Amino acid sequence: MEVKGIDGKLEKSDSTSADEISHLSIDIGGSLIKIVYFSTNSKCSTNDEAPTLSKERQEVPNGDLNHHILSGRLYFVKFETSKIEDCIKFLSSKKLQKCGAQCHHSHAVDKIKIKATGGGAFKFADLFKEKLGLTLDKVEEMESLVTGANFLLKAANHEVYTYIGGQKEYVQIDQNDLYPYLLVNIGSGVSMIKVDGDGKFQRVSGTSVGGGTFLGLGKLLTKCQSFDELLELSHQGNNRVIDMLVGDIYGGLDYSKIGLASTAIASSFGKAISENKELEDYKPEDIARSLLRMISNNIGQIAYLNALRFGLKRIFLGGFFIRDHAYTMDTISVAVDFWSKGEAKAMFLRHEGFLGALGAFMNYKDGSTDPMPPQLVEQQPAKRSSSCIVDRIHNSTRVQENENGATDCRLRVSSSFKIYDEVKRC
Amino acid sequence: MEVKGIDGKLEKSDSTSADEISHLSIDIGGSLIKIVYFSTNSKCSTNDEAPTLSKERQEVPNGDLNHHILSGRLYFVKFETSKIEDCIKFLSSKKLQKCGAQCHHSHAVDKIKIKATGGGAFKFADLFKEKLGLTLDKVEEMESLVTGANFLLKAANHEVYTYIGGQKEYVQIDQNDLYPYLLVNIGSGVSMIKVDGDGKFQRVSGTSVGGGTFLGLGKLLTKCQSFDELLELSHQGNNRVIDMLVGDIYGGLDYSKIGLASTAIASSFGKAISENKELEDYKPEDIARSLLRMISNNIGQIAYLNALRFGLKRIFLGGFFIRDHAYTMDTISVAVDFWSKGEAKAMFLRHEGFLGALGAFMNYKDGSTDPMPPQLVEQQPAKRSSSCIVDRIHNSTRVQENENGATDCRLRVSSSFKIYDEVKRC
Repeated sequence: MEVKGIDGKLEKSDSTSADEISHLSIDIGGSLIKIVYFSTNSKCSTNDEAPTLSKERQEVPNGDLNHHILSGRLYFVKFETSKIEDCIKFLSSKKLQKCGAQCHHSHAVDKIKIKATGGGAFKFADLFKEKLGLTLDKVEEMESLVTGANFLLKAANHEVYTYIGGQKEYVQIDQNDLYPYLLVNIGSGVSMIKVDGDGKFQRVSGTSVGGGTFLGLGKLLTKCQSFDELLELSHQGNNRVIDMLVGDIYGGLDYSKIGLASTAIASSFGKAISENKELEDYKPEDIARSLLRMISNNIGQIAYLNALRFGLKRIFLGGFFIRDHAYTMDTISVAVDFWSKGEAKAMFLRHEGFLGALGAFMNYKDGSTDPMPPQLVEQQPAKRSSSCIVDRIHNSTRVQENENGATDCRLRVSSSFKIYDEVKRC
Repeated sequence: MEVKGIDGKLEKSDSTSADEISHLSIDIGGSLIKIVYFSTNSKCSTNDEAPTLSKERQEVPNGDLNHHILSGRLYFVKFETSKIEDCIKFLSSKKLQKCGAQCHHSHAVDKIKIKATGGGAFKFADLFKEKLGLTLDKVEEMESLVTGANFLLKAANHEVYTYIGGQKEYVQIDQNDLYPYLLVNIGSGVSMIKVDGDGKFQRVSGTSVGGGTFLGLGKLLTKCQSFDELLELSHQGNNRVIDMLVGDIYGGLDYSKIGLASTAIASSFGKAISENKELEDYKPEDIARSLLRMISNNIGQIAYLNALRFGLKRIFLGGFFIRDHAYTMDTISVAVDFWSKGEAKAMFLRHEGFLGALGAFMNYKDGSTDPMPPQLVEQQPAKRSSSCIVDRIHNSTRVQENENGATDCRLRVSSSFKIYDEVKRC
């Protein structure tokens, strides 16, 4: 099997085999490694869950004859950065396209470049070279986040939602009224980026109090071992046991003069001051809840202040801190609503943790003078079951845990660019 | 001995005795009780440390014959709110003026009102009534903070300083160019107030991540028993052991594209994620340091964002979180400088923790049509040693721990108002 770029279009041989990866990008953060890869091994079916693999050039739905469609699946996988060996093992088990089946052996792929972003693209470059023979072709971290977010905001339906009063409500994005917006990516730390268009952005703020703080402090305080375990704990907890509320100070009263209800948190973890208790006397559930609320609220507040600073009404949130977790989203939403007096809205991206990896993925350029990054092709209902040129993100394809503890997601893209640019045949 | 208001001026009898308190105000916060009281028991000397007690009307230095000077000392004492019984004991041991010596017995002072602020003025009103017979005359919390801050900013020399590169530098405040400014009061929680003039202000923001969070989380994580112990621990610690730095993610490199040095904190407590360590494996010193830096930096950032929002160049910081602690001030200063790109300055108030209590103290009004709150009288160098009509806050008078663990400070005021308004003779 081989893949080569011809006039900036993708040409794919007929010989495909299981688990072949045609495009792969990686985002190596402080805590998590996120991988996005496009695989053409899927068998066609007439439903969205198992789309037909297009093995030949297809006309794109809008009639643009210059571009062709490669259907398949885009997978989303993550690993803990501290367990990078698992990631290496995973990649070495995959057959990296262009080289054929034998190329999943490390000695055979040493000419392959893959798009990589995040600080770990620098830190682990030698490791990937040594273990997999892969060269990490670095894409700037903020640029990747923005490209990934724009990609999702423009191309995917049911990608964006608000979370208010315990209810998710999907938001239809008007592409003509998308910019400017504030992108808040909550990884180990938090980046806040003002986005004005494709490739037009500025990192305007951030905070070190992010997902790494939640898990770091959470592990120290509760002895839990994973982020999801800590979230589960928080779900069962009551933050009022440890947080000092306005009512605790005001004798049960509101501080109505400044609009603070008696139940508002005056001081996170403030009750742990005056009581004669030690760590062991508190329930891990309550600690996890206070911690989650402290961090979520803080992020919501700083995000709002930055949105206000630039007059941005839309705040899109990504990053693996959120994890579709009700209380996290609720706290961030309430914080933004409270501080903005209802003027600004927190909106969540379903593919929250993969913005950077997706953005790096989009960075594959074809060789033509008119670079054409991967594009989602809008779903054409009439053709849906026959052509498999579908493309929207399916509700049902998200959050599937595989044996690596990875979240496995998928979508389909049209492709019209060279894969592994500058690679040579092996 | 008696005190009465005559035409809005203070008339004081000749009979004074030790430990008599002529004015007292109290600020009862979530963690700390702060008391400011004016005592006329001091003996005169020719140096600033032990000023002459003026026992008769004196002409104020500016020649305003309508006002008179009562010299004495203004004391600043604090207690932990959880040990309010110590505070009650302290107050019951004092002789509350107007009633004479016998009035320090609780049964004799039940007609006395004292100015009180903070949420505890509501919560503990009944306790003060029951135990001391004192009625707490409530002054709104934000109003008290602003009045206290304005009082210090206008009247006191050597009150305000910056902390840059390990150096304190006192700032001379131009009273004609004081407003607007941002007041950041860091108690258990944090209030941020835009101040536009005397009595003209708006609480524009705040955060629940404050001094209560530092001590609360600090106690849980290090088992230390007091705020000062935790600060002392932090002084010896190294936050890089637990915080995830930019260099930890980027393989030792800076993330120069967005101006983050390799030593910048990417994720507070982020290293505690990936390492196979438990709480016991970390030094309490390092934990305390990370915690202090996380909270100080966060406050500095939110303060800056609010200053920016309203175009405020001056940020004054008060509250008992600071405690003249080098690393705290350094972190806040660096945060404000970093985020504002040098445009805004963090300035610290030496009487940091007593803004609210001082403001409540200023709330004593005389009965005239032209209310005259207590005023500091500017120091007159020529008269300094002879008249004792001095007034500035002395460097040497701060941070004297008494047996209650209280910070004991003093300054002298001119007084021209009724004390304990609406009190009756006993």
